[in-house]
Amino acid sequence: MTGLVLLVGAGPGDPGLITLRGLRALESADVIVADRLGARGVLDGLAAEGVQLKAEIVDVGKLPGHHAVPQDAINALLVQLAEQGKTVVRLKGGDPYIFGRGGEELAHCRERGIDVRVVSGVTSAISVPAIAGIPLTHRGLATAFTVVTGHDQIQELGGGRDHTVVLLMGVGTLAHAAMTLGRGERGASCPVAIIEDGFGDGQRVTVGTLETIAHQAAARGVRSPAVVVVGDVVRLSPYAPAELASHRSALGKDTAL
Amino acid sequence: MTGLVLLVGAGPGDPGLITLRGLRALESADVIVADRLGARGVLDGLAAEGVQLKAEIVDVGKLPGHHAVPQDAINALLVQLAEQGKTVVRLKGGDPYIFGRGGEELAHCRERGIDVRVVSGVTSAISVPAIAGIPLTHRGLATAFTVVTGHDQIQELGGGRDHTVVLLMGVGTLAHAAMTLGRGERGASCPVAIIEDGFGDGQRVTVGTLETIAHQAAARGVRSPAVVVVGDVVRLSPYAPAELASHRSALGKDTAL
Repeated sequence: MTGLVLLVGAGPGDPGLITLRGLRALESADVIVADRLGARGVLDGLAAEGVQLKAEIVDVGKLPGHHAVPQDAINALLVQLAEQGKTVVRLKGGDPYIFGRGGEELAHCRERGIDVRVVSGVTSAISVPAIAGIPLTHRGLATAFTVVTGHDQIQELGGGRDHTVVLLMGVGTLAHAAMTLGRGERGASCPVAIIEDGFGDGQRVTVGTLETIAHQAAARGVRSPAVVVVGDVVRLSPYAPAELASHRSALGKDTAL
Repeated sequence: MTGLVLLVGAGPGDPGLITLRGLRALESADVIVADRLGARGVLDGLAAEGVQLKAEIVDVGKLPGHHAVPQDAINALLVQLAEQGKTVVRLKGGDPYIFGRGGEELAHCRERGIDVRVVSGVTSAISVPAIAGIPLTHRGLATAFTVVTGHDQIQELGGGRDHTVVLLMGVGTLAHAAMTLGRGERGASCPVAIIEDGFGDGQRVTVGTLETIAHQAAARGVRSPAVVVVGDVVRLSPYAPAELASHRSALGKDTAL
């Protein structure tokens, strides 16, 4: 009998932010195929809270200085395990369908006759800004948001400061992205926040403007993983310096539980 | 002693998609102040699964034919309950910070000295398309996505079909939005999906193009709540008719668990 593949969003790395269905999937799994970013942190966190999983854990994430397991090999592994009759959880950081290549894995399994389902997760694009006190939308400050990766489509992003932009995987291309966005309607003085290692031990927030942020990031040695938020909602962050902060805000730090 | 306000994302309406921390917050609450859309469905679903909550539930959501409780009154209620020393969960559909006015409620509580925290949730903008087999990003099909409400900022949305657009609360303004987007780079033949009542009993998916969708929606009597997705990722949906479907896709229906 063929098994089952569940593509599960682990959320942003905090074990409290996996969904109930995601947890049940982990508990039912024979094998968990986990990314390093986010997913492994959640497994470790659940174990620390006493959650016992019977599953074998296969780590296909990128280790520092090593190559990640290629996508083709992950696809093949999922099919191979399911064909052995196993219940396989493919645990992905954030949501499986947001820059997670979940759609590719799902299509690959389906094409080979494997039953495969998706369990949505809390995306880092929303929850990591939230821990820095930044809502992506806010009445009077932002009524739309766009999520992009660092290297794509920055050029064509329309809208002003009331259209929030979230850059994922954007540290390497930050200087270029900030310059490009600063030339547009948002302008060079548009507020920017970088949240490094959200929900992790190295969590750190840097706030500046499109003009200053690349310099600040270099000076502070900002590193991946990080989420970059651009727009007037950054003014709501308690990490915003006085000259950028919104008078509307009386938010304290640590706004996430 | 002053209480605590927790702004909790209930997720899209399926009780399995609330987070572990969200559930624990509900279990610890003295009072739950719930929206009708999404949030009430989650409470009913959890009760059906045998989860017993000690909290009093206050429904501030909009009932058909009735006015919703005004935002000012909700803000005041949260503060009043917390000042009575209660642990208050403000349960909101989806994520509290995505068109949920969570930022306003948080600021209001903070300004009055109330301890208030945010627990992120699974947003409908991502998870409702997912149940229709539509990932908002997909290699080769989409590398960015934008989330907007129906009435705002459609005019200035740049990008082509590889930049997915999600319209929330967009049924009333669908004809206008589709026409506006169709005049842009995406073109009138760009695929569109409408997912009504995602995760609910009335879940239904309608797929067409920017040119045809308003007519189809009228003919089928499409109603709120609904999530509208625009872009080439719609081709991946098993609900896409043959002439729109991607040959890359071999997805079956019911891709969400």
